[in-house]
Amino acid sequence: MKIKVGIVGGAGYTAGELIRILLHHEFVELGGIVSSSNAGNPVHLVHDDLVGETDLAFTSELAGDEDVVFLCLGHGNSKSWLHKTVLPATTHVIDLSNDFRLNADAEFEGREFVYGLPELNRSRIQQAQSIANPGCFATAIQLALLPLAGKLTNDIHVSAITGSTGAGQSLSETVHFSWRTNNVSIYKPFTHQHLGEIGESLAQLQPQSEAEIHFIPYRGNFSRGIFASVYTPSDLTQDEARELYKQFYADAPFTTVSDKEIHLKQVVNTNKCLLHVQKQGKQLLVTSVIDNLVKGASGQAVQNMNLIFGLPETTGLNLKAGLL
Amino acid sequence: MKIKVGIVGGAGYTAGELIRILLHHEFVELGGIVSSSNAGNPVHLVHDDLVGETDLAFTSELAGDEDVVFLCLGHGNSKSWLHKTVLPATTHVIDLSNDFRLNADAEFEGREFVYGLPELNRSRIQQAQSIANPGCFATAIQLALLPLAGKLTNDIHVSAITGSTGAGQSLSETVHFSWRTNNVSIYKPFTHQHLGEIGESLAQLQPQSEAEIHFIPYRGNFSRGIFASVYTPSDLTQDEARELYKQFYADAPFTTVSDKEIHLKQVVNTNKCLLHVQKQGKQLLVTSVIDNLVKGASGQAVQNMNLIFGLPETTGLNLKAGLL
Amino acid sequence: MKIKVGIVGGAGYTAGELIRILLHHEFVELGGIVSSSNAGNPVHLVHDDLVGETDLAFTSELAGDEDVVFLCLGHGNSKSWLHKTVLPATTHVIDLSNDFRLNADAEFEGREFVYGLPELNRSRIQQAQSIANPGCFATAIQLALLPLAGKLTNDIHVSAITGSTGAGQSLSETVHFSWRTNNVSIYKPFTHQHLGEIGESLAQLQPQSEAEIHFIPYRGNFSRGIFASVYTPSDLTQDEARELYKQFYADAPFTTVSDKEIHLKQVVNTNKCLLHVQKQGKQLLVTSVIDNLVKGASGQAVQNMNLIFGLPETTGLNLKAGLL
Amino acid sequence: MKIKVGIVGGAGYTAGELIRILLHHEFVELGGIVSSSNAGNPVHLVHDDLVGETDLAFTSELAGDEDVVFLCLGHGNSKSWLHKTVLPATTHVIDLSNDFRLNADAEFEGREFVYGLPELNRSRIQQAQSIANPGCFATAIQLALLPLAGKLTNDIHVSAITGSTGAGQSLSETVHFSWRTNNVSIYKPFTHQHLGEIGESLAQLQPQSEAEIHFIPYRGNFSRGIFASVYTPSDLTQDEARELYKQFYADAPFTTVSDKEIHLKQVVNTNKCLLHVQKQGKQLLVTSVIDNLVKGASGQAVQNMNLIFGLPETTGLNLKAGLL
Repeated sequence: MKIKVGIVGGAGYTAGELIRILLHHEFVELGGIVSSSNAGNPVHLVHDDLVGETDLAFTSELAGDEDVVFLCLGHGNSKSWLHKTVLPATTHVIDLSNDFRLNADAEFEGREFVYGLPELNRSRIQQAQSIANPGCFATAIQLALLPLAGKLTNDIHVSAITGSTGAGQSLSETVHFSWRTNNVSIYKPFTHQHLGEIGESLAQLQPQSEAEIHFIPYRGNFSRGIFASVYTPSDLTQDEARELYKQFYADAPFTTVSDKEIHLKQVVNTNKCLLHVQKQGKQLLVTSVIDNLVKGASGQAVQNMNLIFGLPETTGLNLKAGLL
Repeated sequence: MKIKVGIVGGAGYTAGELIRILLHHEFVELGGIVSSSNAGNPVHLVHDDLVGETDLAFTSELAGDEDVVFLCLGHGNSKSWLHKTVLPATTHVIDLSNDFRLNADAEFEGREFVYGLPELNRSRIQQAQSIANPGCFATAIQLALLPLAGKLTNDIHVSAITGSTGAGQSLSETVHFSWRTNNVSIYKPFTHQHLGEIGESLAQLQPQSEAEIHFIPYRGNFSRGIFASVYTPSDLTQDEARELYKQFYADAPFTTVSDKEIHLKQVVNTNKCLLHVQKQGKQLLVTSVIDNLVKGASGQAVQNMNLIFGLPETTGLNLKAGLL
Repeated sequence: MKIKVGIVGGAGYTAGELIRILLHHEFVELGGIVSSSNAGNPVHLVHDDLVGETDLAFTSELAGDEDVVFLCLGHGNSKSWLHKTVLPATTHVIDLSNDFRLNADAEFEGREFVYGLPELNRSRIQQAQSIANPGCFATAIQLALLPLAGKLTNDIHVSAITGSTGAGQSLSETVHFSWRTNNVSIYKPFTHQHLGEIGESLAQLQPQSEAEIHFIPYRGNFSRGIFASVYTPSDLTQDEARELYKQFYADAPFTTVSDKEIHLKQVVNTNKCLLHVQKQGKQLLVTSVIDNLVKGASGQAVQNMNLIFGLPETTGLNLKAGLL
Repeated sequence: MKIKVGIVGGAGYTAGELIRILLHHEFVELGGIVSSSNAGNPVHLVHDDLVGETDLAFTSELAGDEDVVFLCLGHGNSKSWLHKTVLPATTHVIDLSNDFRLNADAEFEGREFVYGLPELNRSRIQQAQSIANPGCFATAIQLALLPLAGKLTNDIHVSAITGSTGAGQSLSETVHFSWRTNNVSIYKPFTHQHLGEIGESLAQLQPQSEAEIHFIPYRGNFSRGIFASVYTPSDLTQDEARELYKQFYADAPFTTVSDKEIHLKQVVNTNKCLLHVQKQGKQLLVTSVIDNLVKGASGQAVQNMNLIFGLPETTGLNLKAGLL
C-alpha cells in the first residue's frame, strides 16, 4: 500500500518538516507539493537539508489523485483554500492551521474536522475524513492536563516557553537573531489563541468545570521546542497522580510519564511528549515538553494520517532526538 | 575621598563583576582581593577580560585597613569567615551570600546586617554597618511586588527564568554547554530558597498578608539575566497600577516602569531593573528584568556601598547595556 | 538476519548516539551495552531522550555472542580494553577512538584495522574484520580534499569550527556554558591530532605529495557540527573542479556536492556531508559540513557496519535533519 | 568643556551604541540625533535599553552648532548626505561607513578624511578635520598585522568570524533567528570589501609588499564580536614576535598583547583589542578579538573624537566587559 500525499503551502517550516518525515515513510508516495511562488523549483532549494536526498520539485497544483492533503497554510488561509478548491470527498484533509480546531469551526462546506489529538480522540481520528491538527502550545498543555479532567476544581496556572520556529518563517523584530539571542520575553499573556482549543478538550472530558486557565507564554532563545509548567491544587497524592497519568497514557506510544525531572532537549526533533508529575504542598505540578514542529505540528499530523489509514501509529515517526 | 575596598572570595563570578565595576569607580581604591587558591597570581589570570587593564594580584589576606569588605563566598561560608576573622567594628561588610538575609540571621557576633534592597530600605542602608545583599531572583521578584504591598489579598503566581551564571562557576551537568544550550528546565518549584527573603520584605510592608507565593524557577539557555512574571488578582485598574508603580519608584535611579513591554536584554550588563505593568481580566501582571550578576548581585552591592558612604547612588554604575 | 551488537563505553556521547541509531536499525539486535559505572541501570537514565523508548539496561560485560562490538572509549583506552579482553576473531570491532587510525597502529594483537572512511575505502571496509572509525575533523576535511588527491601541488589551508560535543562529556572550563556561550576560540593550531590521518589518506591516493596542511581548529558556541573551509591553489576551473567532485562522490549516498553555498545546519543530526566548491583567483575553496557525532562518529560507524554485513549503506541512517 | 555632538542615522545599531557611550561621556553634550523616520519619538523607543536613562528624542535635523557629527548611515549614504548638507568646515565629521576609507575616497567636496585607526594614525587623527572610521573586520585584522609591516614577505592567511550585528538591523534570511542559531557559514571568501583598507594600511608601512591576503569571513551564531586568526611565515622567533608586538602597542590604551590564548568574550562590550602571538613551525600565528560594535565601530569613533579634541583617549570608554 502507498498513500498518495499532497502538501499545500509547501515552502513553510511545517511543510519542510512534513516532507522530511514523509520522504522516509515507507507507505507514503509524495504527490503535489504546492507552492505557487516556488513552483518548478526543486524542493531542496527551500528546504536545503534535502539536497542530495530528493529531486522532487514544487508544483503549482495538486496531482489530483492524492489520498490525503496536508494544509500547511497560514492561519485563516485553509478556509479560503478549501473554499476555492474542488477536492473529492474521499480525499482526507489534515489541516495544520487553527481554522477548524474549535467546535464552532469543525464543519466547513460539507467537511467534518476531528480535533487531531490522538491521546484524546484516537478512535474518532481513525474514522475521520478530515483532521484539525492541534496547536503546539495546546498540545503540550493538554497532554499535561487531560488525565486530570473530571478532577479539576480550581484555577490552573500555566507558564510555557517556545522556540522561534513557533513564529514561522516571516521576518520580524522578535525573530531577528541580534534581538532574540540571549533574550527572553512574553507575549499575549492570558489571551493566547490556543486557550480555546485547550478549554474545549477539557470540557469534552469534564463538561461542568469552571477552572480558569491562566497562561503566560514566553519567547525563548532557541529554535525548537516547548517547555510547559502546569499547576493546580489537587487532592491527589503524588503517587496517585503519577499512577493516574501512567494509566491514562499507557497506550500512547509517544507520550511518556518520566520518573525523573525532564528537560526540553529530551524530545527535540522527535514526536514525543514527556511529562513529569510532582506534588508540592497542595499544588500538583505537571511539566511537559514537546518539539513544536513535530509533536506540535507535522509529526502529529503524520501520526493522525497513520491512524486514519490503519497503520501503526509510529510508522515513519521513530525519529532520533538531537539531545545534545 | 577614596573608599578602601577589600574583596573576599575574589575568584568567583560575583567578585569578578565587582572588580570590573570598582576598577572604574572614581572613589574606590582596591585593597586586598583575597583568594587563597590564587594568591600571588594576577587578577587577570582568572578574570581574563582584565588583562591590560590591571596588574593587581590576588592576596591571601585583606590589607587590614579596608573601609568596606565585600564577601563573595559561597552560601554558608560568610558566617564561618566572619567567625574566624577579626574585623574592626568600623569596617563595613557587604555580604553577597544568603547567610544574613533573613531576620533571624540579621545579627551575627555583634554585627547587624541590613537587607540591602535600596528600593525598600534606602534610609536604613545609609546608616548601616553591614549589608546582606539580596538574592538575584529575590531582587527581580520583590521589585515587581513591593508597590502592591498593603494591597495583596490573594495568591501570587511567579515564573522566572535565569541565566547560567546564577549557578556559579562550579561545573555540573546542568551548566555543561552541550546540555544547557537550546535547553530549558525548571528546578526547586515552589521551594526556592529566595522565597524567604521575599516573604519577609512583603511582611515588612504588609504585616498581616497571607498571600502565598507560588514560584516556578526556570533555567534558561543564556548566561546573564532574569525575566520574572508575577501576577495576582487586583482591584486596581491598569492605569492606577501603573501610576502606583511609577510613584513608588520615582526616586529609584535604577528601577524604571516601562510603558512598553520589556525584554531581558534591555538590562543585561547594567544595574537596572525594568518593570512593566498590565491588567488582564482580574489579574495584574508585572514583568521584571534584571541582570542577575549586576542588580542581582555585585552592582547592587556597589549601590549599597555608595549609600553607606554618602555617594550618589549611581556612582560607578552607569554601565552600558550590551542590548544586542 | 539480525546483527548482534555490543557497545563498550556505553555512557558517553558517541555511545548514546549509536544507541539512538541502532534502536531503529531493522537488522540490529542490541546485546551488551557495557558501562561499568552504570551497570544495572536503565540506559535511559544516562541517555534520557530514550525514556519511554527502551528498557534496556547497561551491563558490566558483553553478552559474548556479539557479531560486532563498537568501542566508544576514550582515546588510548581501546587498546587497553582489547588487550585485556578475549574476543573471538570472528567478532568484528569498530573502534571510535583514534587508537588504530594510523598505519602504524592498524595491526594490534592479531587484529587488522581498516580506516573506515567509506568514500575512500569502501571495498576494503566490506572485507574488514575491524574498523578504525575516522575522527570528526578528519572526516570533514578529507571529504573536502580527497577528489583533489593526485593534483595537490601546494600548501593547503584549513579553518574549521566544531561544536562542544566534540570535547565529550567531561566537564572543563571550555565546556562550561557561562564560558562557551557567545564565545569563540581556537585550540591546537597547526598541530591537531587529526592531521595524521588526513595526511595518510591523501598519501594513499597521491604518494609523493609534499603539500603541507595548515589547520586552525575553532571552538564554536553550538553543540553539534563541523564547518570546514579548505583552500589551495589549483589549475582547475570552477566547473572542472565541481565536475571532478561530483564524479568522485557519484556513488556516495551521504556525500553530496551542493551547487549553492552551504551552512552547518543542513546536515546536523544526519549522516550527510555536504560540500561546496568554488574558485576565486587561483584558489580553489571547498567548504564541508558534517555532524561531528553522526558522520563524524557514530553514524559513520553504523555505515561501516552496514558495509561489513553487506547491507545497503544507508540502512538505519535515513535521519531527519533538525535544520531549524 | 563640552563637545556638542550630532548623530545622523540615529536609529541603527552603531548609532545606538554611540548614544549609549556618549550619554556617560563627561565632556559630551548630545545635540541632534537625526532619524527622519523616528523624528519626534523618544530615543528609547528604538534603543530600548535607554528607557529611564534619557528622554532625548530623535530629530529631523542637526541642531546646527555641533562640534562633531557622527555619520551612522549605510554604506554609500554618507557621501550623498554630505553632498546635500551644508556643514561648516569647522564641524568635524566622523563617518562610520566605508565611503571614505580608501585613499581614493579620502577627499570629498573639500573635506579631508583621515583613516581613523589610532594605533596606525594617532598623530594624524589628532589633527584631523574628518575621520573615516575603520571597518570592523579591518580593525581586527590590521591590529593583528601592523607590527609585522616591513617584514611581510609571504602570503597572509586569515579566517575570522563575526557576530550577527555586523550585518546590521535589516531583516534577511541569514539573520533570522531560526536560521542563524546553532549555525555557521561563510560569505564573500577572498573578496570581502575590507581587504582594501587593510591593504592600504599595510602599504602605508611597507610600500613594496606583495604579500597577498587570503581571507575567509565566517558568520557566527552570536551577536557581538570578531575573532580573527592571521598567519604568515616569519623568520621571527616567538619571543621576538611577542616583543615586537608589545613594543608596537606599548602606548595603545586599548590594544593589549596577551601571554595567554585569548577568546572572544574577553573584549565583548568593550573598546579593547586583545592579541595573542605564537609560532608553530615557520608560521607566525596572531589571533585578535574585538567587539565589532565598539572597537569595530562606535567605540573607536569615540576614541577618534577624543583624540581630535585633545582628551585622554580612554575618556568615556572604560566599559565593563560582559565576559560571562
